[in-house]
Amino acid sequence: MNVAIQGSNSSFHAIAARSLFSEDINLIECLHFKDVFAAVKSGSADYGVVAIENSLYGSINDTYDLLVKHDLHICGETYEQIGLHLLGTKDSTLDTITDVYSHPAALGESDEYLDTHLPKAERHEYSDTALSAKLVADSNDPTKASIAGDVAAIAHGLTCLAKNIETHKDNYTRFITLGSSKNPTPSKNCKSSIIFQTANTPGSLYAALGVFAHRSLNLTKLESRPIVGKAWQYMYYIDFDGEFSQELQQELSKYAAGIRLLGSYHNGAIIEA
Amino acid sequence: MNVAIQGSNSSFHAIAARSLFSEDINLIECLHFKDVFAAVKSGSADYGVVAIENSLYGSINDTYDLLVKHDLHICGETYEQIGLHLLGTKDSTLDTITDVYSHPAALGESDEYLDTHLPKAERHEYSDTALSAKLVADSNDPTKASIAGDVAAIAHGLTCLAKNIETHKDNYTRFITLGSSKNPTPSKNCKSSIIFQTANTPGSLYAALGVFAHRSLNLTKLESRPIVGKAWQYMYYIDFDGEFSQELQQELSKYAAGIRLLGSYHNGAIIEA
Repeated sequence: MNVAIQGSNSSFHAIAARSLFSEDINLIECLHFKDVFAAVKSGSADYGVVAIENSLYGSINDTYDLLVKHDLHICGETYEQIGLHLLGTKDSTLDTITDVYSHPAALGESDEYLDTHLPKAERHEYSDTALSAKLVADSNDPTKASIAGDVAAIAHGLTCLAKNIETHKDNYTRFITLGSSKNPTPSKNCKSSIIFQTANTPGSLYAALGVFAHRSLNLTKLESRPIVGKAWQYMYYIDFDGEFSQELQQELSKYAAGIRLLGSYHNGAIIEA
Repeated sequence: MNVAIQGSNSSFHAIAARSLFSEDINLIECLHFKDVFAAVKSGSADYGVVAIENSLYGSINDTYDLLVKHDLHICGETYEQIGLHLLGTKDSTLDTITDVYSHPAALGESDEYLDTHLPKAERHEYSDTALSAKLVADSNDPTKASIAGDVAAIAHGLTCLAKNIETHKDNYTRFITLGSSKNPTPSKNCKSSIIFQTANTPGSLYAALGVFAHRSLNLTKLESRPIVGKAWQYMYYIDFDGEFSQELQQELSKYAAGIRLLGSYHNGAIIEA
């Protein structure tokens, strides 16, 4: 099975893809999120896996906006804990490091450690944690270090100079699986993701949320994103526990427009039919 | 009066600051958003001006998160239209350009133009549109171009190779003014920004929004941001038309916790007392 991911085969996306499917999937490495969507759309990948949210940094806007632009379906989700390590070449020690490379979010999460232990080291932003590990490994330069995860350390044969240097241990990323067709109707204990718009009048969003509240459906996430070309008007993304029944959709359509089900799915591994 | 901004004195932040105050303010140029907050907090600036939202790209998360970390007050807001031009040195033409420099959002907004007119030019991401204009001017190199606004073009003496190259003309940024003390109670036709949290139970956000709906108060924005250290729990930011009366606050406190008024303010120029 071909699964498209953003990043390299030792990135957190790769870890998420292997936990959603199996170890022996064929990973298609994409540079940008939009390339993952395109790969699924064209059929060159059976599925795609993209990050949608991090527990510290919040929503990944790119993914939210791409979900609207493409008619792909969310088929699953998983959460991965993001553990960050300071990685160097075999000859490096904390004293040899003058330059640190990583993704901006990983550098930010390691701020306190770097301020304390490597205050003079220059920090360089990189598009991907795993690629920053590759850069350090390829350079074979003991002055360079990367901040990346376990799998990247092993894949590139780097030495761990300091383990779990992240400030907040409660650092999780939520990944979703994208497919070109809907999941077969999942059971009632699934989760659903929908988008809709409301009128720009007092109480309009309140009325739409009432449809869920009156059925005791718990919202796990509410995100608003601008509607391109309509300044200061918003589209709402809602994740809720439960399925998006026809009855629910009919009721919601009294208060909202542009309703679309992005997908109903379960958390954890995807079992292929 | 000292006003701290993110970016240089020919950036869109500088334009917003001059429209909020007056032409002869003393601008304090800061590299990062957090430096603007720190300048107001320390008193080295009387006010700060930071972007909070763009009509195409959505919320600027940095600003939202910094509002929670600091006890500063929103004292005003303004909207600026973002017009983007392709700028080169005096000897440059479209044919001489091989490298284009700008902020990632401005490069993204100019995608279609660049794909059509400069498909071979390499695109370089820069922290600020105005600084990318300075880079091109300082280089005096006809192979380099910047994508930036009117004011940056004039400030750095660059030639406009193509005007308004942005894909979407409906491109506005909302800027807020930060102060260390509250506005004197603004009149009833003001706008207010608050934050609060709700319980993670069905209907809790619905109940909180009911406080506004039952008073016919129009929400102009609802944003959710993660609560650091509590994975998948959220803080809500609400902007609404009206003042945040004691009665409103008391009613909201039945359904929400951690309520804080970020500010009540008017759109447009700030009249100093």
